[in-house]
Amino acid sequence: MERSPDGTRFVLVAGTTATAERDGISAAGADPDLMTTTPAADAELLTYGRPVRTETVPLSPSGCPTPALVTRAVREVLGFDVAVVDGGLVEPTAAPTVTVGAGAGRDVAEQDPVPTAHGAFEAARQFGRKLPADELWLAETIPGGTTTALGVLRALGEDAMVSSSLPENPVAQKERAVEAGLEASSLTPGDAAGQPKRAVRRMGDPVLATVAGLTAGAVESDTAVTLAGGTQQLAAAALVRHGGYEGRLGLATTAYVADDPTANLRESAAELDLDLTVTDPGFEQSDHVAMERFVAGEAKEGVGMGGALALADRAGVSMADVREQFAAVYDDLVDEATVGGAP
Amino acid sequence: MERSPDGTRFVLVAGTTATAERDGISAAGADPDLMTTTPAADAELLTYGRPVRTETVPLSPSGCPTPALVTRAVREVLGFDVAVVDGGLVEPTAAPTVTVGAGAGRDVAEQDPVPTAHGAFEAARQFGRKLPADELWLAETIPGGTTTALGVLRALGEDAMVSSSLPENPVAQKERAVEAGLEASSLTPGDAAGQPKRAVRRMGDPVLATVAGLTAGAVESDTAVTLAGGTQQLAAAALVRHGGYEGRLGLATTAYVADDPTANLRESAAELDLDLTVTDPGFEQSDHVAMERFVAGEAKEGVGMGGALALADRAGVSMADVREQFAAVYDDLVDEATVGGAP
Repeated sequence: MERSPDGTRFVLVAGTTATAERDGISAAGADPDLMTTTPAADAELLTYGRPVRTETVPLSPSGCPTPALVTRAVREVLGFDVAVVDGGLVEPTAAPTVTVGAGAGRDVAEQDPVPTAHGAFEAARQFGRKLPADELWLAETIPGGTTTALGVLRALGEDAMVSSSLPENPVAQKERAVEAGLEASSLTPGDAAGQPKRAVRRMGDPVLATVAGLTAGAVESDTAVTLAGGTQQLAAAALVRHGGYEGRLGLATTAYVADDPTANLRESAAELDLDLTVTDPGFEQSDHVAMERFVAGEAKEGVGMGGALALADRAGVSMADVREQFAAVYDDLVDEATVGGAP
Repeated sequence: MERSPDGTRFVLVAGTTATAERDGISAAGADPDLMTTTPAADAELLTYGRPVRTETVPLSPSGCPTPALVTRAVREVLGFDVAVVDGGLVEPTAAPTVTVGAGAGRDVAEQDPVPTAHGAFEAARQFGRKLPADELWLAETIPGGTTTALGVLRALGEDAMVSSSLPENPVAQKERAVEAGLEASSLTPGDAAGQPKRAVRRMGDPVLATVAGLTAGAVESDTAVTLAGGTQQLAAAALVRHGGYEGRLGLATTAYVADDPTANLRESAAELDLDLTVTDPGFEQSDHVAMERFVAGEAKEGVGMGGALALADRAGVSMADVREQFAAVYDDLVDEATVGGAP
């Protein structure tokens, strides 16, 4: 009997950075609890389809649900394997996690925000090298992560811009945080070019260190990698490129990130020679409350949403079916009272 | 769209007890590395179908493979969901794990071999209560675990006997270890009747504490539980009964354990009012090297093998198909050189 247990594997790296506590940077920043709860809850939603140790579905102040519900909806249709890697969680999650030694990230403006970056990168690289899979889709969840992504891009000397989970990208706040971080780390833009571990340790977050390590390891053993996400995954790709890998590398994101005029994802992806896949879930064709906030520019991406949509599309699942399943997941988990009572 | 993400969930609790280091108690005891590597490797085999951070498939000195390969083979046919709970692992595993605070177990003859028992029991109970599943199948992997199972049974005052992964059950060694443990804990048989946490802390191991907690929590939220395994799971069932649960509880094991004359599983299961399912994989109908050692009386059970066989049988998968897939898994992972060179 033939064995083919490998196939497609989806890996979510979940972690935290204190950068999310900065005013106006992240929807999660309004409530420090959400900063630590969101990645733990996202891991549970993707794994089990509902919160388990965490108690509520992460919603933005205006009621936009975590994109984990979209990724989960696609998973319920396609049934792909999921593994969660602890990329610096603070709150315990009931989702099974792989440990690579990543600790919670500190504020990017500190001198050494990710002291565990080197160890996590190397442990993730070992794991990525040995993890059985024909293709790996790597996702992330870390509130505040676009700011640390900007920090990494600047440290590497890449001029790409980053998107936001907010309708109005707080670009000025992000730039200020990154400038403070560069100064604290005695770096000028580009000083860490070709030094990905230095860049992510001084200006990044533990999730970026872990995703970059996983990618570096997986491509070493000829596993195809697609980074599922937006500009945070662009930063992860930049880390891998600055580590010297010149082969194929995919980036799969949503139309919401690709069309964000405050970022320049298509151009930046081309500069890093990434195979870009953009998928539009067509949420404007629905008047479901869960989709309206995405159409209004919130969330945009996260928890591998763009990758999940690409997998659905590749499998011939229509976006109408994805929307229907997403609505079913949302309706099952979020009642009107919860939305109305969101902070 | 209807959502039914729960269904059947298989949970493996993987951990260690220093009791396995005692002479002659476990096949793993011959090599201290195997004691810590085996549960980590079993978790990877069940999750990924091959060793990942661990490097080899656990084999007994005579070449009997870990029953994890049987459970994995069934999983490759049926595709049930798996979660691994860290029940006191020493060696890091690449399998994602849920943390309940269980630490490695010390020798059963010590005064306090499982100091983390109470905390692990309660955290596992919380997790079991909330874990979405219609039915939970709980499996274990812990070298030396039948000796600690005997310790728990005696502390509770149950006179059931335990089986062995060796063809000749080292009953006298086990009894001596348990007697020493009772003395160190100032207990006489039955002193911990009705006190499951005390029994498992003083005379058990962290896997038993975790399995018992998971079971107690799951039945509280009306999830059906089947303990997949042999006399270790009988001890876990005894802990749950002594905690006051009188409802339905399943035990699914192999014919190798049920027919072991040194244990008395059928009778003991009846005394504890367990719904017993015994499945015979018919390994004697094969001359494959992987099955010969089972027929000779080795391993017998473990990593939920009996539960996996029961699930296969219930799904209409023939034991001939199970044997074929087991052989395929073994042939893919274990080459002749490895078997010949086993310690």
